[in-house]
Amino acid sequence: MSEDQSQFRFDSLKQTWVIIATGRSARPDEFILPEEVQTEQDCPFCLGNEHETPHEIYAVRSDGSNSDSTGWEIRVVPNLYPALTVQPDELGRTAEGMYDRMHGIGAHEVIIESPDHDIDLTDCSKDHLREVLTTYRMRMSDLMKDRRMRYVLIFKNQGGTAGATLSHPHSQIIATPITPRAVKTELNACLDHFQRKERCLICDIIKQESACGDRIIYDDGAFIAFTPYASRFPFELFIAPCNHSHNFAEIPDQDLDNLAYCMRNVQKRMKALLDDPAYNLMIHSSPNLNSFSPHPTNWTNIEHSYHWHIELFPRITRIAGFELGTDFHINSTAPEEAARLLREVRLSE
Amino acid sequence: MSEDQSQFRFDSLKQTWVIIATGRSARPDEFILPEEVQTEQDCPFCLGNEHETPHEIYAVRSDGSNSDSTGWEIRVVPNLYPALTVQPDELGRTAEGMYDRMHGIGAHEVIIESPDHDIDLTDCSKDHLREVLTTYRMRMSDLMKDRRMRYVLIFKNQGGTAGATLSHPHSQIIATPITPRAVKTELNACLDHFQRKERCLICDIIKQESACGDRIIYDDGAFIAFTPYASRFPFELFIAPCNHSHNFAEIPDQDLDNLAYCMRNVQKRMKALLDDPAYNLMIHSSPNLNSFSPHPTNWTNIEHSYHWHIELFPRITRIAGFELGTDFHINSTAPEEAARLLREVRLSE
Repeated sequence: MSEDQSQFRFDSLKQTWVIIATGRSARPDEFILPEEVQTEQDCPFCLGNEHETPHEIYAVRSDGSNSDSTGWEIRVVPNLYPALTVQPDELGRTAEGMYDRMHGIGAHEVIIESPDHDIDLTDCSKDHLREVLTTYRMRMSDLMKDRRMRYVLIFKNQGGTAGATLSHPHSQIIATPITPRAVKTELNACLDHFQRKERCLICDIIKQESACGDRIIYDDGAFIAFTPYASRFPFELFIAPCNHSHNFAEIPDQDLDNLAYCMRNVQKRMKALLDDPAYNLMIHSSPNLNSFSPHPTNWTNIEHSYHWHIELFPRITRIAGFELGTDFHINSTAPEEAARLLREVRLSE
Repeated sequence: MSEDQSQFRFDSLKQTWVIIATGRSARPDEFILPEEVQTEQDCPFCLGNEHETPHEIYAVRSDGSNSDSTGWEIRVVPNLYPALTVQPDELGRTAEGMYDRMHGIGAHEVIIESPDHDIDLTDCSKDHLREVLTTYRMRMSDLMKDRRMRYVLIFKNQGGTAGATLSHPHSQIIATPITPRAVKTELNACLDHFQRKERCLICDIIKQESACGDRIIYDDGAFIAFTPYASRFPFELFIAPCNHSHNFAEIPDQDLDNLAYCMRNVQKRMKALLDDPAYNLMIHSSPNLNSFSPHPTNWTNIEHSYHWHIELFPRITRIAGFELGTDFHINSTAPEEAARLLREVRLSE
């Protein structure tokens, strides 16, 4: 394989694709666990260090300042060590004996969420938070115009334990020509439920959670946050719009305010209860329906059957051999207990 | 739920069971990341501290010493904080509205692999290593006599990063009344391959790896070790018997010597190359065919189609949001490069 080109390789035993991203071996942290060591001076995401990142794709600049200069509030740049790249045009699907591979085509972007190195997003203004979410929506929509991309994932690793290598507040976007296995499983489960009942599985879950109440942290009628019945991790959270909606990229403006408020509320609770834990956050939205290559035909009802949501879990326990060897998680905190503790946190506002 | 009783709960969106093991909340490390802090004096697995564990299930005692006393070389005890327990007899399958749960029935054992707190298994004699593997085989066979148990998983977490909470050399066994999702995926992939081709998928993989050679670390005709084509983790290893065999519990005596030799060889290489990394090791074997409840009928050819193997991966990179949100791994070290580096390690023997 070319040294700079990532590859997708298919694991025929585990029935999933893997990205072999050897271009990333230029990373200084290769072979060691990432630590967050950046002082403000070294940080490529800080104000004044704009030249240390690739050219910006987008920025919120209310002062009309120039691209790649200071003056921004939110900035989107390509990842300096991308796992996937937009070139070449063709996927180059190839057999290697019984194996399958293709070029590592995709996009890998970083959303720098604030010029302030040390700020926590929960301490930002609600307006700023809404602007971050608007940027998510904009980038997701834009990446979906590339019909090769079947899926766009927005995620955030906060803290070294959660996989962050830079402590400056940021999220990442990866667009892939494959719908990832975990999302496919959810899509198929939702479709199966819809085909049998003509109802959305996640709408049904939300209805049952609302009625029961034991696992609810937040519910304002627009967004709901609860600990899932079968939570994999202690204090895992599920955040979703109360009304059916399959695609985060189509979230209406007025809902962005509600979502910002909901996220800030639950994240403040988590931060207070668990002493500012490392966490992972990801948006599960429907696949790119503009995609060039057809999705499985049974996904034609995806708009009715899938329901976008956010998964959020603090990384306060290790993921060990049992979990990795079986996909079978052991969670030592009942979600009812986690929800009760999170509800009991007193917020200052 | 009863405070001491674990539960299985089904996630209808992710289509997998989760163990909610609140009995484990008595663990002193709850809500914090486990660190290995045991000095020899505190360690419940050390010689002379036999009273600190539950009563032993089995031990290798060549001096004829009494149960739960010193004199052992290998000792098997129930986990003091079990995720699952053998009582009650019935699974108690229950619906909770649209959700599904059952009692956390199963077994959770610890294999203390040496009386020596500080020894590394790769420094043990080959005879001792074979004895450890013989103990694995014996416990797996014994647990499979419980017809409620559909699957028995043997795994090892070494190092805090890999999820170990005690540094004394040990492995764990978990028996569950469910075949875990990751194993089901493998079983179904193998069955599908067999139904189309009447050949074992893993035999085919071994044949291609042998012919190619780029990813081989070790091959003595009895066991083969290689870095999988679609390795999820840098330096991930796949160890399997060269000849078809579905069930680790039926490994013949003479193969135990070969396996001990193979494992010691590749683990010494990994230890030398990666500076004694934390790692996870797990044995993927066929499900318990004695199981009380019938397995899916299409698994009747499981003996011909599945091939037991060991997965081994060092924990030198973090598992971040992208991986957890998608089951989609990004690996920055090509398996060919990993294999070359491991082959180049010079072993002293």
